[in-house]
Amino acid sequence: MKIRASATLSYRFPDATQIIGLIQCARSPDQAILSEALQVAPEAQLITDDDGFTRRIRACLSGEVTISYEAEVDNGRRSLLPAAGRQHLWSDLPADVLPYLLPSRFCPSDQFQRFALREFGNAGDGVARVMTIMDWIHRHVDYQAGVSTAESNAAHTFTVRAGVCRDFAHLAITLCRALSIPARAVGAYAVDLQPPDFHAVVEVFLENQWWLVDPTRLAPVEGLVRIAHGRDAADIAFLTTDKPCELISQTIEAVRL
Amino acid sequence: MKIRASATLSYRFPDATQIIGLIQCARSPDQAILSEALQVAPEAQLITDDDGFTRRIRACLSGEVTISYEAEVDNGRRSLLPAAGRQHLWSDLPADVLPYLLPSRFCPSDQFQRFALREFGNAGDGVARVMTIMDWIHRHVDYQAGVSTAESNAAHTFTVRAGVCRDFAHLAITLCRALSIPARAVGAYAVDLQPPDFHAVVEVFLENQWWLVDPTRLAPVEGLVRIAHGRDAADIAFLTTDKPCELISQTIEAVRL
Amino acid sequence: MKIRASATLSYRFPDATQIIGLIQCARSPDQAILSEALQVAPEAQLITDDDGFTRRIRACLSGEVTISYEAEVDNGRRSLLPAAGRQHLWSDLPADVLPYLLPSRFCPSDQFQRFALREFGNAGDGVARVMTIMDWIHRHVDYQAGVSTAESNAAHTFTVRAGVCRDFAHLAITLCRALSIPARAVGAYAVDLQPPDFHAVVEVFLENQWWLVDPTRLAPVEGLVRIAHGRDAADIAFLTTDKPCELISQTIEAVRL
Amino acid sequence: MKIRASATLSYRFPDATQIIGLIQCARSPDQAILSEALQVAPEAQLITDDDGFTRRIRACLSGEVTISYEAEVDNGRRSLLPAAGRQHLWSDLPADVLPYLLPSRFCPSDQFQRFALREFGNAGDGVARVMTIMDWIHRHVDYQAGVSTAESNAAHTFTVRAGVCRDFAHLAITLCRALSIPARAVGAYAVDLQPPDFHAVVEVFLENQWWLVDPTRLAPVEGLVRIAHGRDAADIAFLTTDKPCELISQTIEAVRL
Repeated sequence: MKIRASATLSYRFPDATQIIGLIQCARSPDQAILSEALQVAPEAQLITDDDGFTRRIRACLSGEVTISYEAEVDNGRRSLLPAAGRQHLWSDLPADVLPYLLPSRFCPSDQFQRFALREFGNAGDGVARVMTIMDWIHRHVDYQAGVSTAESNAAHTFTVRAGVCRDFAHLAITLCRALSIPARAVGAYAVDLQPPDFHAVVEVFLENQWWLVDPTRLAPVEGLVRIAHGRDAADIAFLTTDKPCELISQTIEAVRL
Repeated sequence: MKIRASATLSYRFPDATQIIGLIQCARSPDQAILSEALQVAPEAQLITDDDGFTRRIRACLSGEVTISYEAEVDNGRRSLLPAAGRQHLWSDLPADVLPYLLPSRFCPSDQFQRFALREFGNAGDGVARVMTIMDWIHRHVDYQAGVSTAESNAAHTFTVRAGVCRDFAHLAITLCRALSIPARAVGAYAVDLQPPDFHAVVEVFLENQWWLVDPTRLAPVEGLVRIAHGRDAADIAFLTTDKPCELISQTIEAVRL
Repeated sequence: MKIRASATLSYRFPDATQIIGLIQCARSPDQAILSEALQVAPEAQLITDDDGFTRRIRACLSGEVTISYEAEVDNGRRSLLPAAGRQHLWSDLPADVLPYLLPSRFCPSDQFQRFALREFGNAGDGVARVMTIMDWIHRHVDYQAGVSTAESNAAHTFTVRAGVCRDFAHLAITLCRALSIPARAVGAYAVDLQPPDFHAVVEVFLENQWWLVDPTRLAPVEGLVRIAHGRDAADIAFLTTDKPCELISQTIEAVRL
Repeated sequence: MKIRASATLSYRFPDATQIIGLIQCARSPDQAILSEALQVAPEAQLITDDDGFTRRIRACLSGEVTISYEAEVDNGRRSLLPAAGRQHLWSDLPADVLPYLLPSRFCPSDQFQRFALREFGNAGDGVARVMTIMDWIHRHVDYQAGVSTAESNAAHTFTVRAGVCRDFAHLAITLCRALSIPARAVGAYAVDLQPPDFHAVVEVFLENQWWLVDPTRLAPVEGLVRIAHGRDAADIAFLTTDKPCELISQTIEAVRL
């Protein structure tokens, strides 16, 4: 699918606010960036880190600033989670995948071992387990704003049984890790997401590869454009600042071309 | 059943430690205290509050002190939870029962409304719901020491799916309150409890009366001797002190006569 | 001071929502209710519990409902916290005051013993300690909306150093209890509070009496009209319901006559 | 200093337990590994990842197993934190250091910005701030076992004002990050640590370099042998398993040669 993704973020920053921004499309084998443009107004120095995958913007900003980004992306080479596929033993995983087995701030997977084993232990392994987990979440958790906060973790979502995309992602990641399936959070632009916003989804590592899954079922995986991935939402915030700052307006869009 | 209940608590108290002790059998229509003796060695002044139900000991202690209590109790007039019985509307509850509808420290019932309604909403009401909750806990939570701490609440137990008697009690209370069934924690001596210890169980209010239930199924309700009740474990601690103090030894017993 | 206090609460209730409301002025020796009126539109049956202090409304409501209350109160007999006054030993406290020494949901005073002793242990006792605690809170905690939620407890406020009136009250209560000073939460109408709203303040028990204190310093104690008291905010919510319901509008006022 | 470091870990593993072990000395410019030996009894296949710094052991074990490690290390090229040194702007940090600015599971630095700025904002920057933070921790937090658990985070330690080495490390890391100083957790062997155990300390990034600091002051930095580093204790656990397993015995030693 060819997609035009864009974000326009206007904030009022206290003097000399240090920022890290994650809004540029990732370089990834499953998506080709056809064109892109990044602008900041009024003009300011932007540093862009590029680790071959994620592009991270750094800047020091003051006052009212608008950051705009637009890209055209072709994600046609993306493979979708196959119907079957086994999970790896720990000893067979690439070393750089291992951190995604561990509990993290919003994904306390160590607390979920009993539940996960009891509920999903007989669901086969690999793809079958992942699909059973996603189905369980779909049946048991309501998508609803206002129930969770930026400090809510997967245990909170598991208890209150409601949340937004990041909460769904955290619970899915947590349950996968509790069953020894590496899982991580992915920030993305998402075609057909209503209302339009940055989206948080999940990647699981099976059959020697990462696969995208959307536990909320709100946006098709074919319409996702990757921005960044990490252990959980703390790693993929589209804006991190060293001081509280004030949102003026924010427009995110992703449309198929 | 006639029961002899006893507790011998030896502690090393820092100088002038203020204590509140809840170890005496409660005065309750469902248990008659046939005889009892309370001793402290070395001798110290004990104040005993008696609100017609709970007897609370207050003292100011220093150094190594042993508090001993022994009672013979006949709890033969206790009624067991009947096979059926409806729960009350809020408007039909006695006013002094209302606090046991509210969330409390270890029982955040407000967070469990969605889960409780979805899982137990069709289980009838009153006794049927309570029995379904107890059965759910029995099937999903493992009795195991070392998983929880004195700071664990019902949401923790719900996530980790393991705990000890106070955790079982907190989860049962929480789920009942989430369904508008008043529920409270009861501290008790318990015949046949292995290993012997103070026990924490639950009371639910149905059919205009409080009924004892043991979510752990470790001790028969017929063998319980009430000590105190409250919103959760914070209210029924057998010993509360204003300073950390050191346990030397502790023996609790309850035997049928 | 003579005060006119009023509240108009409009909500949209799901069918047959059970409610408990705490909006009527308390009967209390330090405030005389000169006149009052309670109305519900459309008409519905209201049960009012009166324990000689708190008046609690119970009802079962459906659809759009407005509850209105207005009262004229003279609180001229209120005594203000004196300049000096000692705290009680546990053994000298009335038995009904003891629960306010214990930790509760939003006031985990057991976790604060080290901090409280180190920071306030040399501040004398009684009134001196309370004033030092209030001063410490004033210097270290910012009054700011949006930092806390209805699930935040005093440990959260202690860490983030910001909150609203209920957070200030919880932290003050917690620190007092950690130093063996009984403390409880009070819901009140408050003259001069900006913006007008229900207010949460604190009562401490010293010199055989409860004394009102406002840790936020936003409203004069002379302008408070008591509604209810309890261990913490969970006990004094102006509206508790058995289902989520939707706020339409809410107006609270307290003016001196 | 030349140091002999060793660990002997005996566990009873359920059948086919997957493990990740972090017990080997890290390859690091500030420590030369003179010799080392790693053994497992009964014999089992060990995979050792080596990312040029950390060596991670992976295995699949069953029954009673003893893992032994011994190494001789010369850490004589280690530089100690200088008396002065400025912290970096975010824009001047190497990209791989940026994750250590972010909050993590046990280090919720976002919650501490107000406190950190108010308490340490005037303490200069860089080394001066770090030393002021370490001094603050030394004065306000008691080293004491039994107060914290493996689930305690820095906010818990900040409240209860007591903990063990991992708690000290988490609080130090949290406060540094809240002031934009990159900080991470380091697992280490530690000469002179009483009782001998694995130690958790801290690294801060200043003057373009990571520097070791021990917030507990229990072991000299000159006597530390690095094993691994990460965002917090979750990343540097010496043993991670996919199932609960039973400790039989554990001996850790570090002696100067």
